[in-house]
Amino acid sequence: MRYLDQAAIEHIAIGAAFLGTGGGGDPYIGKLMALSAIEKNGPVKLYSVDEIADDDFFIPAAMMGAPSVLVEKFPRGDEFVKVFQKLAQYLGKEKIAGTYPMEAGGVNSMIPIVVAAQLGLPLIDCDGMGRAFPELQMVTFNLDGISATPMAITDEKGNIGIFETIDNKWTERIARSATVEMGASSLVSLYPTTGAQIKQSGVHHIVTLSEKIGEIIASKNQEVNDKLQHLLELVKGFELFQGKIVDVIRETKGGFNLGKMNLEGIAHYKNDQMKVHFQNENLLAEKNDKVVAMTPDLICLVDYETLLPVTTESLKYGKRVRVIGLPAHEKWRTAKGIETAGPKYFGYDYDYVPIEEMVKKEVAEHV
Amino acid sequence: MRYLDQAAIEHIAIGAAFLGTGGGGDPYIGKLMALSAIEKNGPVKLYSVDEIADDDFFIPAAMMGAPSVLVEKFPRGDEFVKVFQKLAQYLGKEKIAGTYPMEAGGVNSMIPIVVAAQLGLPLIDCDGMGRAFPELQMVTFNLDGISATPMAITDEKGNIGIFETIDNKWTERIARSATVEMGASSLVSLYPTTGAQIKQSGVHHIVTLSEKIGEIIASKNQEVNDKLQHLLELVKGFELFQGKIVDVIRETKGGFNLGKMNLEGIAHYKNDQMKVHFQNENLLAEKNDKVVAMTPDLICLVDYETLLPVTTESLKYGKRVRVIGLPAHEKWRTAKGIETAGPKYFGYDYDYVPIEEMVKKEVAEHV
Repeated sequence: MRYLDQAAIEHIAIGAAFLGTGGGGDPYIGKLMALSAIEKNGPVKLYSVDEIADDDFFIPAAMMGAPSVLVEKFPRGDEFVKVFQKLAQYLGKEKIAGTYPMEAGGVNSMIPIVVAAQLGLPLIDCDGMGRAFPELQMVTFNLDGISATPMAITDEKGNIGIFETIDNKWTERIARSATVEMGASSLVSLYPTTGAQIKQSGVHHIVTLSEKIGEIIASKNQEVNDKLQHLLELVKGFELFQGKIVDVIRETKGGFNLGKMNLEGIAHYKNDQMKVHFQNENLLAEKNDKVVAMTPDLICLVDYETLLPVTTESLKYGKRVRVIGLPAHEKWRTAKGIETAGPKYFGYDYDYVPIEEMVKKEVAEHV
Repeated sequence: MRYLDQAAIEHIAIGAAFLGTGGGGDPYIGKLMALSAIEKNGPVKLYSVDEIADDDFFIPAAMMGAPSVLVEKFPRGDEFVKVFQKLAQYLGKEKIAGTYPMEAGGVNSMIPIVVAAQLGLPLIDCDGMGRAFPELQMVTFNLDGISATPMAITDEKGNIGIFETIDNKWTERIARSATVEMGASSLVSLYPTTGAQIKQSGVHHIVTLSEKIGEIIASKNQEVNDKLQHLLELVKGFELFQGKIVDVIRETKGGFNLGKMNLEGIAHYKNDQMKVHFQNENLLAEKNDKVVAMTPDLICLVDYETLLPVTTESLKYGKRVRVIGLPAHEKWRTAKGIETAGPKYFGYDYDYVPIEEMVKKEVAEHV
């Protein structure tokens, strides 16, 4: 157990936005929410997964919908606790032992910290993705057959819903339609889980990993190339591209931010171009029309100079970025994981190839 | 208190479909569901509103969505009880004293009979409209400020939702989006009410009125013109037209059956034409391009020979019908009632004029 202070939260927000691969919300908004909650309520305890009891009960809290909308509909601050408590009450659980994020993301890693601070509960060092994904069934708990429901949903106006669905794709369908109706974003609590289920099916140490990533990115006394080297070592990642955004096509549709961007190479990529397709999250990267990274592996955009993560809603013409590719958590690389969140699920007609294999092949071709 | 036997149910189904003004579902399907339930569980008790206790608690059950879909998605039979019990459980009420219909309609008047039979509860002789309407806030309880929520919703697959909304228009919006996602029809329990609220805000005697209408329509030993005369006297209605359907334009959109039909006059209307606009229910009738009846007053289509009600989903080219207009319940003729379900709400740019005034004026013009 350790306490999360202001510095930790700032680092977690940055690192989680990096792992959010464009989705999961803006880390600046997320950070403000979490810092304001700990300023008011005191610091939050972080428990590692080993420290929780098997039969204790935990409830995550998250934002659902198009992250771009959150910039307009700034939360009131009590929605997260409300949706969390509504689910707890519905479940008839007297004691909820803690909360944790559903996914890594600038906002979605911070919401559980707000809930933890406001209710005096610990945060657990795990999530259900190890990255961000756009749909509710794209969760490692789902891969192990754990139900997403009962779930609770609310909006900033005060409307509340509870769902129990026959499977987790139906959770996504019905919660998505409610989210769209609620104004394209909502707050959700779902995948209520025991300590044993978290140990078995969660992605462990993700809060700590986010913090370490954020520490590297935020560090002031390193050259950008050194920082990048440290970052790539930490996450076992690859720099795939350096470029300037020359075109972004996007729309907010069905409670998602959908689109693609074109990058024109700079520095030693100056004769190359890259296209990145996204649905809230970055899902497929093509360099010179050849796929170089694909979901469930992580495709992370960062600022060229600062390495700060670039979220989908903040993409703009002329911005210079680096594209970094990371291997997904092993749970996503199983047959069920690839079926659930691989390229074919999103309509890209490719067989999944792990990023490290594609990189190795490209290196070999260029020798 | 009296028992509803097979004959009563057959008559209620017909009469309620008449009052359903095109919506509320097919009376043949409704009748089959209710008869099968009483055959299995015994007859259902009908209580008049005077016979219920003020502080007893009642829950309605209904179908929501495009009635045409029900013909394809025949209910399994246990959904109604499931949605009713889900709401009861959520409300934490140990004893529910009875059920009643939300609206008059071939299916929606029968669903509470199924629930009553399956759970051994009485049916209350009231509803929340005195007719059928397409949206959840178009309920006399809403006119008196009673909340539609908590509400429960389910589909034939087994998905369940519970909503608590900030107002009854939000109930409609969120439940509609869930209904569309569930396949354009769903089962709902909403407007949980006390006996006192039913006495104050319900439309009383509607089951009995439906039964009397059905008795007249089903009677075998009267000429059609005598039957029509009896019917018009009973409901204080007017025959507005006799014609043949020559055109129906419709679509299933947003969980509604939307459209309009053109009628070519027959018999002593043979030089006239009529247009009827509907959104599940018939909402506006124009004779020779002049409005002759408009919502919230009732516009009922019946078969030319048998007087059996014609529902929106069964409209077809060549069918000969009579169009009957009826004054709405007085609660709908208040300022709040007209704002909630008058012509302007549905996008027809007319000030509401009561049907009897329009008929009187037309008669005067033709003398």
